[in-house]
Order: sequence, then C-alpha cells, then structure tokens
Amino acid sequence: MSKLINIKSKFNLFKDLWSPKVIAEMNNYQFKVVKIKGEFIWHNHKNTDEVFIVIDGTMNIELKNQTISLKSGEMFVVKKGDYHKPYSKNECKVLIIEPRGIVNTGEEGGFLTAQNDNWI
Amino acid sequence: MSKLINIKSKFNLFKDLWSPKVIAEMNNYQFKVVKIKGEFIWHNHKNTDEVFIVIDGTMNIELKNQTISLKSGEMFVVKKGDYHKPYSKNECKVLIIEPRGIVNTGEEGGFLTAQNDNWI
Repeated sequence: MSKLINIKSKFNLFKDLWSPKVIAEMNNYQFKVVKIKGEFIWHNHKNTDEVFIVIDGTMNIELKNQTISLKSGEMFVVKKGDYHKPYSKNECKVLIIEPRGIVNTGEEGGFLTAQNDNWI
Repeated sequence: MSKLINIKSKFNLFKDLWSPKVIAEMNNYQFKVVKIKGEFIWHNHKNTDEVFIVIDGTMNIELKNQTISLKSGEMFVVKKGDYHKPYSKNECKVLIIEPRGIVNTGEEGGFLTAQNDNWI
C-alpha cells in the first residue's frame, strides 16, 4: 500500500552527504532524497536519464559544455550518457528520480559511491 | 539539450483545469503540471503507477478503501491498476509523473479527457 510522503520532512531523518535515500517507487523508478555539499565526481549513466529537483538550497550541475545553476523549485534532466559533476557551495537538499539500481557514481566507483536501494 | 525548468513558473503559462502540460521527459516518462479544482472522475491506469506531487494548495485522492489528503510538498504514488478520483475544493497546482502516452482519464473517456503530450 502506498503512503503519503512529505518530501521535506524526509531530510530530517539523516545527515550524511552524497548518500541518496529512497522515499518512493513508481514502477521500476525510484525517488531519492540526498543532501549534497562540496564537489562530487565526474560520472555518467550510460543507459538512463537522471532528474534533479532542488527542494531547498542551490546547486550546480557541471556538464561538459555548460554549467546549470538550480535553486529551490527548479529541475534539470541530465540526459543519458552525459557526463556531469554536481556541486554545491552550501548544503543543498535534492530530490533525484532515476531507475532502480542506478549507482550514484555511475561506473567511476570511489569513496563517494553510496549504498544502493537504501530506504528511509 | 535539456533546459533548466522552474516548476512553479510553468503554472503561470496556462489557466485551464484538468489539462496536464508536459514540462520534461526522463527516458519514456513525462513530468506534467496540472491545475485541478472540483471533482475528477473515477479511473485507473492498468499498466502503470502514477505519481502526484502537490506544488501549491491542497488536494485529495480518493481510493476505494481510503482518501489521501495532500498539501504542498507532499507526494503520493497511485499503484498500477488502483482506481482513484482526484478532487480539490480550491484550485491546486500538481506535478504528475507517469510514462509517456498515459491518458488522464485512463480508459473511462468523457469530456475531461485531455489532449495528450501537450508541452508547455
């Protein structure tokens, strides 16, 4: 059975950065909340688009040919295969939507790779 | 090429009710903004879940065994096949996420059936 989900209140349940937590599923897609601060790594997702919606704060998505600056209430679709590097000067609360099973660092690996399918 | 999308500002571009407008695509899924007021019809979507995120206002989703009340910042996943009837006393601004090609009235038809794939 589905439950009502308050997106903002989910951010009160954790403090760690760059570690997406699943809050809902739609078919084989997952809605994940994540807190970010500082620089992530360059990576891509070869088989899927990825949606970023800023819930609170500001963030940037650096792409190979431009940098997208998002604030609360704004969204951006990183297209399949596009290399991107998220970063944020101050802590930013973000909702990510992508298929189940997508790893946050793509195929790059490294210490920022988060546990997948981590529900909150 | 993807563009930055301000979700709230998209609602300034139209006034009609119960007529979802596409603002973004992620793979074969669409993000749609819709203004609702009053009662919709009972319907379902046999092959897909459907996500409702309230951007501004309050709305209800009547299900066969319960009624979900949502306010701004809250989301709900109507599971595949579940009959549902959205309604709202006052105008409410909603973001819907579902696969491309889904008709707002399911297979029920009628005068509330909106043009599909209507971008804004």
